[in-house]
Amino acid sequence: MQFKLLHKDSGSKARAGELLTDRGKIETPIFMPVGTVASVKGVHQRELREEINPDVILGNTYHLYLRPGMEILEQAGGLHKFMGWDRNILTDSGGYQVYSLSGNRKIKEEGVKFKSHIDGSSHFFSPESVMEVQRTIGADIIMAFDECTPYPCDYNYAKRSMHMTHRWLDRCIAHLDKVPFKYGHSQSFFPIVQGSTYKDLRKQSAEYIASVGAEGNAIGGLSVGEPADEMYEMSEIVCDILPEDKPRYLMGVGTPLNILENIALGVDMFDCVMPTRNARNGMLFTAHGTINIKNKKWENDFSAIDEMGITFVDTEYSKAYLRHLFAANEYLGKQIATIHNLGFYLWLVRTAREKIVAGQFYEWKTMMVKQMDKRL
Amino acid sequence: MQFKLLHKDSGSKARAGELLTDRGKIETPIFMPVGTVASVKGVHQRELREEINPDVILGNTYHLYLRPGMEILEQAGGLHKFMGWDRNILTDSGGYQVYSLSGNRKIKEEGVKFKSHIDGSSHFFSPESVMEVQRTIGADIIMAFDECTPYPCDYNYAKRSMHMTHRWLDRCIAHLDKVPFKYGHSQSFFPIVQGSTYKDLRKQSAEYIASVGAEGNAIGGLSVGEPADEMYEMSEIVCDILPEDKPRYLMGVGTPLNILENIALGVDMFDCVMPTRNARNGMLFTAHGTINIKNKKWENDFSAIDEMGITFVDTEYSKAYLRHLFAANEYLGKQIATIHNLGFYLWLVRTAREKIVAGQFYEWKTMMVKQMDKRL
Ligand SMILES: [Zn+2]
Ligand SMILES: [Zn+2]
Repeated sequence: MQFKLLHKDSGSKARAGELLTDRGKIETPIFMPVGTVASVKGVHQRELREEINPDVILGNTYHLYLRPGMEILEQAGGLHKFMGWDRNILTDSGGYQVYSLSGNRKIKEEGVKFKSHIDGSSHFFSPESVMEVQRTIGADIIMAFDECTPYPCDYNYAKRSMHMTHRWLDRCIAHLDKVPFKYGHSQSFFPIVQGSTYKDLRKQSAEYIASVGAEGNAIGGLSVGEPADEMYEMSEIVCDILPEDKPRYLMGVGTPLNILENIALGVDMFDCVMPTRNARNGMLFTAHGTINIKNKKWENDFSAIDEMGITFVDTEYSKAYLRHLFAANEYLGKQIATIHNLGFYLWLVRTAREKIVAGQFYEWKTMMVKQMDKRL
Repeated sequence: MQFKLLHKDSGSKARAGELLTDRGKIETPIFMPVGTVASVKGVHQRELREEINPDVILGNTYHLYLRPGMEILEQAGGLHKFMGWDRNILTDSGGYQVYSLSGNRKIKEEGVKFKSHIDGSSHFFSPESVMEVQRTIGADIIMAFDECTPYPCDYNYAKRSMHMTHRWLDRCIAHLDKVPFKYGHSQSFFPIVQGSTYKDLRKQSAEYIASVGAEGNAIGGLSVGEPADEMYEMSEIVCDILPEDKPRYLMGVGTPLNILENIALGVDMFDCVMPTRNARNGMLFTAHGTINIKNKKWENDFSAIDEMGITFVDTEYSKAYLRHLFAANEYLGKQIATIHNLGFYLWLVRTAREKIVAGQFYEWKTMMVKQMDKRL
């Protein structure tokens, strides 16, 4: 993998870059739509490609490990072929999902024992086994197995957990060193910074992560309930330590505002279920604020969903029609809202990139942050 | 509305025709996808237009009356504008849905009192009010208000009900004579033949319906549980009486086999929830039989869903992937199966038409009926 830093903003730490994998180019800043279990919910692959147009999407290792499972994915020749997606894929390490099973998992130095949320069956994830799972899925970018601490988190727990994440990282790297790529293309490995909301831990973790010299680096354990300011503070501390010539990926973030603020701090890559999950609940993100399309006020508003017309749904359907679909519980409503929100998120990062290149990012970001912070 | 009879099959009573409304052309035989409540479930309007490509779709008066309701539809300027569909629409009369509410409706000469399945609120449908509802929806073809008898049906009940349907028909016509079209385009009115599974009643009803000289005629009360042979017998009796120079619409039918057999008897138009409803349960119709995609046997079958490639889903996704989506409860599975099934139904009637025109319908139908009657 190559990463070219093309432009640096003068008014902030924002960067425009280009990531080149064996699969193809990823222009940064980028937002990665979440395709949990080999599908971005309710969106056809061709709509994803042609309308939303991301260079990379994310798959969830935990979900894919359970369904369709490793045997099917290996027979298919990996996730790309299985789902019919020929652009880049990044897989998380499953850590986040496994820890979310709270009552149903046990964390030890060796790894994590957990019960499937589907059938209660017992499974074990270790740094080594998760690298194997990600090799079999065959994503272009794969993530280290880490512990994602909750918020708030006791200092001593956060510190112990961070060091375990570091030891797990060493095991991931040692394992990957021993095994070849499975499907002929290379897989770039990103380690993850932890340390909860403690500055000293975040610094220590970022230094350790930076020291392993990976092709890209991730920031985990944020957007787990902490105030936005604390997130930005941690993000800034970490970005300032992580190498400048490698992409920086902030995991699980966030609102359109969070994304612009973190781009300003030097983050290059994002993923979040928010645009898709909120879409299914009738919440639309737009350049002028959020819309709750279930609201009665849209009942007879026959104007286009979004006059910006980023994707076809924005102008082919009206607000009144979309509101009706939600009221009548018609799934097409969720499909439309999902395409709209993902289209908007991708427009946002593409535009951020253009503004960085044009030297106008800071002013634009300041204006957008204000403009988007409304309920329509 | 004009109807041109273009070709008559020599080996059967099948016909190829062309129906011309103010909206545009409908080539017959035609299958009309069901867009219950202003949406063909899970299918974008552009997919319907570009991939499935029917000249006409069906809307349900009962469902549209309840949601979005008459006020919204009138403000929108009718259903076409509301949902963004600029081809033909046919609306049923709501009779079938209202009678399906069994415990929650009361049928009298004046009309039917019923309770909404959504909130239990009370409503009243009469021949006159249903004409008003359909005027407001603004479909290009609208249906008479009839009573659809169940199967089996007591002879005396069927006879009384049939005559009431005839009296209701007179009231529909009298009402429509008094009122102008609402949105500038004309609406063609189709009366409905009833008479349950009794030959003498079906004849009597067909003669009465034929006598009113409508622009097209429908056959109701079939495909309600009677054996297929009985359906074909009734369909044949009625088709032989209904005028040859007007289109014949068999309501609510049916399987691909039922459709081909009824085309052979002289039916021109069909609608049915089967391709869409069964799709959502994982059942695919193909030219070589039906597929239950939930079956474990497809788990690692990475071949295309349907090598015929009628719509994009057939070749862009594999059987194993579609099976996975159903196993993982991903809505995209239902979307894919729905597009596949509707694409296949439209292929079937388009091909029937070509075969009629080419003088090869009977042989082709005989072959297809055998070929499709399999579980793959
Ligand atoms: Zn450490
Ligand atoms: Zn009569």
